[in-house]
Amino acid sequence: MSNLETADRLFEKYNVRTDLALESHQAVIEREGPPELPGVQVHTEDHEGVLVTRIKVESDLGAQLMGKPQGNYSTLESTGLREHNRDVHETIAELTAKEIDWFLTEAGLGPEDSVIVVGLGNWNATPDALGPRVVESLMVTRHLLEMTPPELRKGLRPIAAISPGVLGLTGIETGEIIMGVVDRIGAKAVICIDALASRSVDRLCSTIQISDTGINPGAGVGNRRLAINRESMGVPVIAIGIPTVVHAVTIISDAMELLEQNQQKPQEGHPSQGVQFNVDPEMLLSNPPPPQPPMDKRRLMASLLDPYLGTMIVTPKEIDVLIEEVSDVIAGALNTAFHEGVSYDEVFKYLS
Amino acid sequence: MSNLETADRLFEKYNVRTDLALESHQAVIEREGPPELPGVQVHTEDHEGVLVTRIKVESDLGAQLMGKPQGNYSTLESTGLREHNRDVHETIAELTAKEIDWFLTEAGLGPEDSVIVVGLGNWNATPDALGPRVVESLMVTRHLLEMTPPELRKGLRPIAAISPGVLGLTGIETGEIIMGVVDRIGAKAVICIDALASRSVDRLCSTIQISDTGINPGAGVGNRRLAINRESMGVPVIAIGIPTVVHAVTIISDAMELLEQNQQKPQEGHPSQGVQFNVDPEMLLSNPPPPQPPMDKRRLMASLLDPYLGTMIVTPKEIDVLIEEVSDVIAGALNTAFHEGVSYDEVFKYLS
Amino acid sequence: MSNLETADRLFEKYNVRTDLALESHQAVIEREGPPELPGVQVHTEDHEGVLVTRIKVESDLGAQLMGKPQGNYSTLESTGLREHNRDVHETIAELTAKEIDWFLTEAGLGPEDSVIVVGLGNWNATPDALGPRVVESLMVTRHLLEMTPPELRKGLRPIAAISPGVLGLTGIETGEIIMGVVDRIGAKAVICIDALASRSVDRLCSTIQISDTGINPGAGVGNRRLAINRESMGVPVIAIGIPTVVHAVTIISDAMELLEQNQQKPQEGHPSQGVQFNVDPEMLLSNPPPPQPPMDKRRLMASLLDPYLGTMIVTPKEIDVLIEEVSDVIAGALNTAFHEGVSYDEVFKYLS
Amino acid sequence: MSNLETADRLFEKYNVRTDLALESHQAVIEREGPPELPGVQVHTEDHEGVLVTRIKVESDLGAQLMGKPQGNYSTLESTGLREHNRDVHETIAELTAKEIDWFLTEAGLGPEDSVIVVGLGNWNATPDALGPRVVESLMVTRHLLEMTPPELRKGLRPIAAISPGVLGLTGIETGEIIMGVVDRIGAKAVICIDALASRSVDRLCSTIQISDTGINPGAGVGNRRLAINRESMGVPVIAIGIPTVVHAVTIISDAMELLEQNQQKPQEGHPSQGVQFNVDPEMLLSNPPPPQPPMDKRRLMASLLDPYLGTMIVTPKEIDVLIEEVSDVIAGALNTAFHEGVSYDEVFKYLS
Repeated sequence: MSNLETADRLFEKYNVRTDLALESHQAVIEREGPPELPGVQVHTEDHEGVLVTRIKVESDLGAQLMGKPQGNYSTLESTGLREHNRDVHETIAELTAKEIDWFLTEAGLGPEDSVIVVGLGNWNATPDALGPRVVESLMVTRHLLEMTPPELRKGLRPIAAISPGVLGLTGIETGEIIMGVVDRIGAKAVICIDALASRSVDRLCSTIQISDTGINPGAGVGNRRLAINRESMGVPVIAIGIPTVVHAVTIISDAMELLEQNQQKPQEGHPSQGVQFNVDPEMLLSNPPPPQPPMDKRRLMASLLDPYLGTMIVTPKEIDVLIEEVSDVIAGALNTAFHEGVSYDEVFKYLS
Repeated sequence: MSNLETADRLFEKYNVRTDLALESHQAVIEREGPPELPGVQVHTEDHEGVLVTRIKVESDLGAQLMGKPQGNYSTLESTGLREHNRDVHETIAELTAKEIDWFLTEAGLGPEDSVIVVGLGNWNATPDALGPRVVESLMVTRHLLEMTPPELRKGLRPIAAISPGVLGLTGIETGEIIMGVVDRIGAKAVICIDALASRSVDRLCSTIQISDTGINPGAGVGNRRLAINRESMGVPVIAIGIPTVVHAVTIISDAMELLEQNQQKPQEGHPSQGVQFNVDPEMLLSNPPPPQPPMDKRRLMASLLDPYLGTMIVTPKEIDVLIEEVSDVIAGALNTAFHEGVSYDEVFKYLS
Repeated sequence: MSNLETADRLFEKYNVRTDLALESHQAVIEREGPPELPGVQVHTEDHEGVLVTRIKVESDLGAQLMGKPQGNYSTLESTGLREHNRDVHETIAELTAKEIDWFLTEAGLGPEDSVIVVGLGNWNATPDALGPRVVESLMVTRHLLEMTPPELRKGLRPIAAISPGVLGLTGIETGEIIMGVVDRIGAKAVICIDALASRSVDRLCSTIQISDTGINPGAGVGNRRLAINRESMGVPVIAIGIPTVVHAVTIISDAMELLEQNQQKPQEGHPSQGVQFNVDPEMLLSNPPPPQPPMDKRRLMASLLDPYLGTMIVTPKEIDVLIEEVSDVIAGALNTAFHEGVSYDEVFKYLS
Repeated sequence: MSNLETADRLFEKYNVRTDLALESHQAVIEREGPPELPGVQVHTEDHEGVLVTRIKVESDLGAQLMGKPQGNYSTLESTGLREHNRDVHETIAELTAKEIDWFLTEAGLGPEDSVIVVGLGNWNATPDALGPRVVESLMVTRHLLEMTPPELRKGLRPIAAISPGVLGLTGIETGEIIMGVVDRIGAKAVICIDALASRSVDRLCSTIQISDTGINPGAGVGNRRLAINRESMGVPVIAIGIPTVVHAVTIISDAMELLEQNQQKPQEGHPSQGVQFNVDPEMLLSNPPPPQPPMDKRRLMASLLDPYLGTMIVTPKEIDVLIEEVSDVIAGALNTAFHEGVSYDEVFKYLS
């Protein structure tokens, strides 16, 4: 059996319905046991309580094991993102700006190359409204700079932004709208903002992912069908996302595994389980490591539940407030990363 | 062992975290097997595809078996409520108006007695915004009729309406605000509109419940802490609700039972399960009838999951649109039920 | 002096800052006194209280006299549009559908030729949000029909729709976005929806204008700078608009003329003025016919006030509700006009 | 002729339809010419570009001259309030907090006495939505502190907040709702937030007024009919307002006076007027000082225009954004003024 076939089967076996490369990686590692995946580099840093993980998927095998295209994935994790604290938000925004900056440089963009920001998603459906909300808070400069000679632009980069809407509202694939506009205005790169689905409720509105692999069909809350990436757009595409929902079927599968694992234990009863949760409940819930993954049952479950729960999402009650706050963090990070001549403080000051 | 003790244990055993009397009733009946519960009368009618169920809980035993206070509960069920079809909505609104009319008469109200409609819930959190949205579409007449002599009121009843907000936004128990206003304006009855939690995703935005038992602490999406009922308000309280969420923990427990039931079957494998689902999947999902209810596991599950999923809700992706439509149905039903001199067509015509 | 020079001076003299061809026409006619303008045909019909006026500007001279491009302008006027009465709204929508149908045929479109509807304006600024609101209520079908063979389409026309946003939010001229998308998807015609400025407050939310001359720079509430018309788009452009604001400077000029006219009267004092208003106040206010137009003062006034009032708009207090209602009327009219196989009743039934 | 009669006539003569005491005062002073009004003290300070004016109306004569009840009026003026600059907003909020603090002390409130904030106005009508928006951004603490002994409250004051809605939506006079709630919860003071009408467009969203005279019938954008003041509520009432509209009739009257003044000048023609505007155009526009006030014409004008323009308001195009920003400033100021133990920085940090 070839490596690729193995990878295929592994991925299928552990498919976890997540848009986060970080979760894909953890799922494979923790079940299979190897400390590393071939073709996947992982690097982690802690900055003032914000965990930054950079994953580089650099081979076909790595991509198949992960179920994610080759490329770079940066993830910032902090429960502070979910708290109503402007200082913490500014710290996270600044770290996010640095990651975005790295991606812009990696994509070969100069400091004055124009960028179009695309707010994906449906502004009428709160958990899917991240993209349009970010676009509303963005400093848009293209129309102001168009007539200004470069030497007078004072470090401002031409930024355009659109919220193209969703297929059901427009009748047009989002990717088509973006292509039409990018062709017309000649942007040097596309940055897509999108609400994501994660596997774990702990990551909802507490994690930011930045990648250079674009948006792929079926990803995100809104289930786009056309890839939005370098190949389709003709220019580099950077995707920034925050998980805002967990699919109902996912949460049930995970919870079931957790329970089964508890059942397979010797008869120590509830107390031992309580202890176990006290040790590291969060990781346990988000990454249940069953000794013998009951995959047949998992698949059966999914096939039974999908017709009834397929359009059901799990989301925090206070999602409306959370979306507003994380949108401001992303908009602040983009404003900082885009405009060399503008200090971070200035940017946040003008962010409405 | 007394009947009451039995009832207590039964209720605890089958507690299903639902605000719908109909679901409580089904859960007990289907697990225990008796065709009827003592102290509980159930009457069902079908009107043009809308299933109307009237449950009367008429004894303490019945109340404990059901886990719901003594009183009347009318439920209207129709998947048409979830479809974008104005004709179906009008049919449902008209049937709802008749039920409301029955409750008004039962409460002893004359055709010109004043009523205050209270839109419970948080207008900023979509699934909890049902009440405030209904209030916005309501024909409010108290200020217009105040100075008009009864003989000139042309069948219009004085209607006031408020959306008091939620504790976290006001710092005041919703019940206190309502009491203050009811005292002040001297309304003869209170009608509360609230978003509910159901057990089954099939009932989200497809079921309307009307009851004369008021709103009890912990019920609804917003978890109010003070009862809003005849005792606390001093006047009859009619509660109208539509389920808009399922608690994440509930959906997991139900899904688990479904799977276990599948496992306990003889070795017919997946095909038989498929067949079973084909027969009546909807009922199966919403009311899994396990031969030996695995209640310890269920409780264990709930205790394990609650800290992580306690504030997580399951809701349809398109909840924003659904809330808007069902709010119009309730507002139309209230306008019709309130004002004797106004025909149903006239009411719907003016409903914005 | 040539006719054209005369026309130029006439137009400049009576410039009334209105987006309605009807108001331009009335202003010139009523001041100059001729019963007809050369190169301008006007036809009026009354349908159940809705006044339909069709103006055809068919020569350069006519265009200059009117200050509007050559082409067809249909106007529907009814104060019922401003009232919360669904029946009246349906009547107006049906008449509007007939006019739109005429424009589609005139533009050479077959019943299955695809159309893109563009909701111009800023969804965050209520009086400018007409276009985006109409788009939200539209039946969008392009994505559903794309894969269906024509014989199975049952009279549905492929309809796409976008709300491109405004220059200040996107950094891109609205016209550029539309061109990009039209090129990409190959629509056979563009229909633009836009909020307009009228001269008279009486016409706010009570008048609908449909024209085949597109949207011109500086028109509308949002002051677009690039023409959106057949020349720029390469396909026919039909513009549908409803006045939602009067510019503050306009209302002051008009009021001043009204007062001066009163002053120049003999000393009959207030009573005579009262009588005069009773005769036909509405026409008087919207079309003050001064015997000697004090144009120098008018220009002085405008030049004095513009720096202070330039961005100020006059709008009804209840504009939020009005916009929602007239948006539904336009969306209903479009749905009816677009889809041959769908009856008017069916359309309104599904309009959320 | 008694002083009071004189005052009556003066006030009627110069009635300027403004909710700002500052504008009332200026109108009388500038037309009559006296440097001071009897019974009215005025004190002005400049703080970092924010002009703070404190007016004390201390006699019946003063009240009649001003057309405002006896009491204290603080006004903060800064065009910076209208700009998207967070630093300037924080400065204004801090100065506003100091004024509010003065009013709380003047009203005899101790640092832990409970306060209810009332957001007056209609959340659906943007220019009238100031109050409800402030309430949404407020730190509400009453429910959290209710069970905490004073020594553990860490400088937090019990704050409750409601947005009672408007008469047309509730059928209940706003004052009645507030009375009912105040009675019920026993607040020691009421702070009302309301959108105001000013006379000058320059003051829209650039001026904050704080007073201890409450809200009087007919004031504000929403035209309440019942007074909300110390007499009606039984506890001190502090009103905080920001002008968001000018009535259409007001702006026309003012513009007309400006023009007439220009006409009555000797024949220096337009150039001299241009010069005059360059000197101090803002003051000229907002306070036209005509040598012979043409009051009869003014009244005639109002009576002619009111039927047509009565419900028309003049407001900036970008009112939606402005309301959001000034609401945050007021909420920040209240949070600072209310809670002794919380520093200004901490407050702004948590303000969403």
